[in-house]
Amino acid sequence: MNKYWSSFVAGIKPYTPGEQPADRKFIKLNTNENPYPPSPAVIKAAREAAGEDLRLYPQPECEDLRDRLAQYEGLKRSNIYISNGSDEMLAFAFLAFFKKNEPIYFPEFTYSFYESYCALFGIRYVKVPLGEDFCIDVGEYCSQAPRGGIIFPNPNAPTAVMMPGKDICRILEANPETVTIIDEAYVDFAGTGQESASMAGKVEEYPNLLVIKTFSKSHSLAGMRIGYAAGGGHLIEALARIKNSFNSYVADRVSLAAAEAAVADSVYYRGIRERIIKTRERVIPVFRGLGFKVTESGANFIFVSHKDIRGREFYDLLRERGILVRHFDKPGIEDHLRITIGSDGEMDILIDKIHEILEKKKGGM
Amino acid sequence: MNKYWSSFVAGIKPYTPGEQPADRKFIKLNTNENPYPPSPAVIKAAREAAGEDLRLYPQPECEDLRDRLAQYEGLKRSNIYISNGSDEMLAFAFLAFFKKNEPIYFPEFTYSFYESYCALFGIRYVKVPLGEDFCIDVGEYCSQAPRGGIIFPNPNAPTAVMMPGKDICRILEANPETVTIIDEAYVDFAGTGQESASMAGKVEEYPNLLVIKTFSKSHSLAGMRIGYAAGGGHLIEALARIKNSFNSYVADRVSLAAAEAAVADSVYYRGIRERIIKTRERVIPVFRGLGFKVTESGANFIFVSHKDIRGREFYDLLRERGILVRHFDKPGIEDHLRITIGSDGEMDILIDKIHEILEKKKGGM
Repeated sequence: MNKYWSSFVAGIKPYTPGEQPADRKFIKLNTNENPYPPSPAVIKAAREAAGEDLRLYPQPECEDLRDRLAQYEGLKRSNIYISNGSDEMLAFAFLAFFKKNEPIYFPEFTYSFYESYCALFGIRYVKVPLGEDFCIDVGEYCSQAPRGGIIFPNPNAPTAVMMPGKDICRILEANPETVTIIDEAYVDFAGTGQESASMAGKVEEYPNLLVIKTFSKSHSLAGMRIGYAAGGGHLIEALARIKNSFNSYVADRVSLAAAEAAVADSVYYRGIRERIIKTRERVIPVFRGLGFKVTESGANFIFVSHKDIRGREFYDLLRERGILVRHFDKPGIEDHLRITIGSDGEMDILIDKIHEILEKKKGGM
Repeated sequence: MNKYWSSFVAGIKPYTPGEQPADRKFIKLNTNENPYPPSPAVIKAAREAAGEDLRLYPQPECEDLRDRLAQYEGLKRSNIYISNGSDEMLAFAFLAFFKKNEPIYFPEFTYSFYESYCALFGIRYVKVPLGEDFCIDVGEYCSQAPRGGIIFPNPNAPTAVMMPGKDICRILEANPETVTIIDEAYVDFAGTGQESASMAGKVEEYPNLLVIKTFSKSHSLAGMRIGYAAGGGHLIEALARIKNSFNSYVADRVSLAAAEAAVADSVYYRGIRERIIKTRERVIPVFRGLGFKVTESGANFIFVSHKDIRGREFYDLLRERGILVRHFDKPGIEDHLRITIGSDGEMDILIDKIHEILEKKKGGM
């Protein structure tokens, strides 16, 4: 370790994001980006914001976007807070609510950034094994064990599996003294019904519930970096205190304008979400027909394994054929791949390449 | 304190940024924004980036902008790191280099966010009194006292006073075991000569030197949130480890494109910098002629006081007249105002209003 570093710099566990190749030859199914562009209204709003006013600071408390999101979620401005992507909000929330004496609980296989935050802020944690078919075992989060808090994505990543709202309520009711964070990065892909699977509407009912969402996936704005939290005013105040001890202006003028326009154009976004869900529902049976195990997915990705090919090898064979998917080199899921739902055309190419790989494999056996 | 908060949330000291009034009736001379817009090439680049590719994540390690900045600073990519405004880089650097057993040293009157970071991360600090005319007393930073690090802005804020490069070198040489951070938010306004006052070119010579800069002020991009650090590769590596434990993508696609175009258009930016310096050099004698004390300024703001009016009252009288300036309610500088250098027209209105206030004051006495 370099003598200038703080002692803990060597001990932290930086997260490794999916590859972002500089050339665009690949079909990118590795970082759960949306295959469809942001709505035309969003692009127009972003371009209008990219003008002479860039010389001026943005709203430090992002009131306009918070008002619009509050209306969208059926909440008040004081229930909403904005961040530079949802990862930043997660970091703020770990500091605000999880830096306690007891360890926090999260699933054994989940968003690996949670471990990075724990290392960064010196928070202890317990990784809870997943149940059958990679389901989160609700009972494990409802026991009497002392806990500093709970966090999991719903649907979980990289497993894609959803937890029903009533199970989340059970966890919230069993843990009234600490905060439970539901990381809803993918929740908009849960289903096509009118009923939203998001817990955001329940933050007034559960004072220990914080919901974190992002514009990156369902709103096609990964390149714009906007996330937000929904929670009781007492939780939002803590997040504001952290943010204002860290950076006065976390969201820029163009991002704010783009996100406002995205919330307003719900018709467009419902349309592309339904296309992605339809593609997912079309390809899952195809994968199963080819001998894959596929978890139940409520996300814009699927989590698959095949008895005949190791995960790493499969990743490499797809990469050779111009397709990037995500492989996690972790015991227990090392033979799975996380595959983003792309456009129908991209998924057809993927399936063709998989046919080719499986045929070749059979031929070689 | 709310039961859900971490114990330290109540103890932190959030920074209060200058007012950002929603209506635009005010002449804003309170947050050191640039009175001139970003270059036309920057607006063009930002608008081009605000397209369909916003669905894709930006470069997590910002290689393209780092390469361009490395060329601009005469350094290598490995000497440069990017952040969401320079405040975020300051936060990362406090964690990476200042979280040590010994206290860090910074001036008594300086950027008040430094205290916020210390409270947030549990870092002890010593505030060193300023010398005559608000100069930083170099000797105080060269003693044998055990120090965890040193930070100050150059020019200092809100005092506007510059420290000559040779004094910074003395401090660096007296403190070889810990990092000294020079916060150069305002350095581009130091003077009109060819020679830059920035220390960025010296990071290879001094392994304990980290320089932090921003596009907010001299590059008219406060609304876009881009900051950067220049330092030895060993320091940049520590910053990267922190950032990648916090947020994979801190700069969005539009910000990155805007900043790249800004670095490329040095002719435009030299032009507006020289206009601002010219305005500053024109108004300082006017202020002095009106009985103000004005510190020597190397920044895009001036730091003034007048024996006949208390700082808070002066702030209020200007606000009533549609002009926002910055007042800090801190013993020792509570009768000073920090006034951004606006356009010539804005400064003429300011001076008119000050005439009016002083006349009225005299009449009332």
